[in-house]
Amino acid sequence: MSVLTSPAPAVAARPTARAEGYQPVLDAAALNAFMARAFPHGPREHLARVDQVAPGEVLLSREPGLEHLRPGGIVSGPTLMALADAAAYVAVLAHVGEVAMAVTSALNYQFLQACPQETVRARASLIKLGRRQAVVDVRLFVDSLRHDVGQAVVTYAIPAAA
Amino acid sequence: MSVLTSPAPAVAARPTARAEGYQPVLDAAALNAFMARAFPHGPREHLARVDQVAPGEVLLSREPGLEHLRPGGIVSGPTLMALADAAAYVAVLAHVGEVAMAVTSALNYQFLQACPQETVRARASLIKLGRRQAVVDVRLFVDSLRHDVGQAVVTYAIPAAA
Amino acid sequence: MSVLTSPAPAVAARPTARAEGYQPVLDAAALNAFMARAFPHGPREHLARVDQVAPGEVLLSREPGLEHLRPGGIVSGPTLMALADAAAYVAVLAHVGEVAMAVTSALNYQFLQACPQETVRARASLIKLGRRQAVVDVRLFVDSLRHDVGQAVVTYAIPAAA
Amino acid sequence: MSVLTSPAPAVAARPTARAEGYQPVLDAAALNAFMARAFPHGPREHLARVDQVAPGEVLLSREPGLEHLRPGGIVSGPTLMALADAAAYVAVLAHVGEVAMAVTSALNYQFLQACPQETVRARASLIKLGRRQAVVDVRLFVDSLRHDVGQAVVTYAIPAAA
Repeated sequence: MSVLTSPAPAVAARPTARAEGYQPVLDAAALNAFMARAFPHGPREHLARVDQVAPGEVLLSREPGLEHLRPGGIVSGPTLMALADAAAYVAVLAHVGEVAMAVTSALNYQFLQACPQETVRARASLIKLGRRQAVVDVRLFVDSLRHDVGQAVVTYAIPAAA
Repeated sequence: MSVLTSPAPAVAARPTARAEGYQPVLDAAALNAFMARAFPHGPREHLARVDQVAPGEVLLSREPGLEHLRPGGIVSGPTLMALADAAAYVAVLAHVGEVAMAVTSALNYQFLQACPQETVRARASLIKLGRRQAVVDVRLFVDSLRHDVGQAVVTYAIPAAA
Repeated sequence: MSVLTSPAPAVAARPTARAEGYQPVLDAAALNAFMARAFPHGPREHLARVDQVAPGEVLLSREPGLEHLRPGGIVSGPTLMALADAAAYVAVLAHVGEVAMAVTSALNYQFLQACPQETVRARASLIKLGRRQAVVDVRLFVDSLRHDVGQAVVTYAIPAAA
Repeated sequence: MSVLTSPAPAVAARPTARAEGYQPVLDAAALNAFMARAFPHGPREHLARVDQVAPGEVLLSREPGLEHLRPGGIVSGPTLMALADAAAYVAVLAHVGEVAMAVTSALNYQFLQACPQETVRARASLIKLGRRQAVVDVRLFVDSLRHDVGQAVVTYAIPAAA
């Protein structure tokens, strides 16, 4: 995001370089089909939907249901963490393909503000995509709020086969 | 746990002191009743159950259902993170009471090994219970595996009212 | 960074909005003067230097010395974590001013690749700057490597006085 | 620590099992010799000292110097994180030996309270010691304070050679 905020060439150049370094191999349609197959037991209408795929990042969205609300009508923490987990997984999958099965090793979630019951969006950006490990930054937000509702860093171990 | 493994008086003494420092104000029955009221939309049979309360810690368990499984029949990450979140919340609630509403500020989860579909247990221990902030260590395990399946550190902000 | 990689207006718009939401109140010169006063015991030549300040973010750099190297001549983890800590602190300070003293509550650091002995740069971006809490994303990099060497999320508690 | 605080056999039994599962292969003297060789540039008197080794855990201590203090005379965050990093590394080293070189992949540190300038102790306990990954829980404390000053979870990648 420094692109818009910093005049420094060195700084502005890095996200570009980073993005150019990662090319997706699966598109949104292929990823949505995979997610539907992978989670057959989840209520279809609440599954996270892949909306966009770009070099180094993906954008997902999810419609929270009644069972995803905490007292006060705000979206529950586990619902937000589950979306962050799905978005990060999709970001890796989109760039390494279905062949390699990435295994989540850690998820660090920051709750930033209460999330109202509306479409929750997650943008997952690859911080690192190595042969053995992937690290993904996830930002969760809703259209009615200016600032993010949550942020996560998710780490994956990629099997040697990959 | 150093109590059993370390001969050092200074070391062994600390967990004791730490535990004595925190006295629960709610028992398992009161906590289960609160959880049932707090999450009316959750399928009752899958709610986390509070099994024990002790100074500075609580023990919960949860029976994973089909909808909580990943491909391969292992318990999904979001299900485990949700249990860790519930266990940490209950640990704080048990010691500060229902008056103060703790707000989760961060949850850092480590996936340690695949979790088979059986009763998942979570032991949540207070690392810090301050006037404004609480930090809780959570260990998730199942009876059929010797080592933990997951570990989490959960941080709460406690409103000034508390 | 989605600005360059994603065609989605909603996505592209957010970093802008986020950046516009945070206006610095101290410039690089003022921040460097503060750092020099705040850490009188640190060897001057190894102090982190504030190179740029922009809405919502700052850029720092540090020259690692011999005592900052691990076997193999790579920059040590504690040196990188110290730079991430300084960069995040400066990002908050730049936007809230010296009046309020932010207290670090958590630092979560991801080691991404070995860091050679050259100028290490840190870009710290505000994820959240609330009345009571600030959350900062930090990326560490060196000019000779295309990808980041480290990433951190740093959380601060801001005293009520603020 | 549940051993002293919980009456539950299932709970009390686990730390024992966990500890019995991990047997150290290096003692404190061997570890101190290794640390001295590994960090030749560090001022000897400020090096972390390994005080005890037990199944699944180690105890280290460090004397903070003037250059490790923040304004107000409290021990700086980077000094505490460096001790946590050293303690976790020593815990792994003590159990896998010098042959395998563990590489830190993440360090998540919680600042719990201000740390006065006195001997800082760190107890590092293995949460997981796998073929490819190790996860360590670290508690930092000083003798004059009842509660811990900090807590960390440190994750290591262990090369295939191990």
